[in-house]
Amino acid sequence: MRRVAFLLRLKKDAGPAYDEAHRAVWPEMLDLLKRAGISEYSIFRRDELLFLTMHVENFDASWAMIENDPVNLRWQKAMSTYFAPLDELRHNERFPMMAEVFYLP
Amino acid sequence: MRRVAFLLRLKKDAGPAYDEAHRAVWPEMLDLLKRAGISEYSIFRRDELLFLTMHVENFDASWAMIENDPVNLRWQKAMSTYFAPLDELRHNERFPMMAEVFYLP
Repeated sequence: MRRVAFLLRLKKDAGPAYDEAHRAVWPEMLDLLKRAGISEYSIFRRDELLFLTMHVENFDASWAMIENDPVNLRWQKAMSTYFAPLDELRHNERFPMMAEVFYLP
Repeated sequence: MRRVAFLLRLKKDAGPAYDEAHRAVWPEMLDLLKRAGISEYSIFRRDELLFLTMHVENFDASWAMIENDPVNLRWQKAMSTYFAPLDELRHNERFPMMAEVFYLP
């Protein structure tokens, strides 16, 4: 199981509404994440910066399963109002990934 | 056990040297972290942005134990060459803390 992390950025002042939405993530969205093999999934926020971290065996395979699922498409559409453009993506990146450079069990 | 996260910023282009140092954290520093009750401690990096996350019962109590320990003082001195100034600290903050706004077990 790998520890994976990436970052996202919100529009200015969108933080409280983003938090509110994440206090009530749809059960079918949670179910989709679990079926895709994701666990220990935390989202941390400071102002407009989000840090997302999870345990997953194969991030790309899991996300390939999630991204075109109708439930996820509806969820992403609902969330899209909060996100700033991802202008820091590198070639072939789905999200701005972060590398784990230290781990203490 | 709480999941705690904060961010730090490196000086421009200090990333590779920071990574290198974290491939060989001193055993006595690892021991200090463990004795202070820290586990599942990961540091993620993208360019100059660091995201640090850990499990800890009481972050302030643990850090109060760590911060003036001679081993930590030596470690922080060695690392200080890599860090950018913490100009985003709020009142009474030791680090720029992030709030967990979502968690899926």
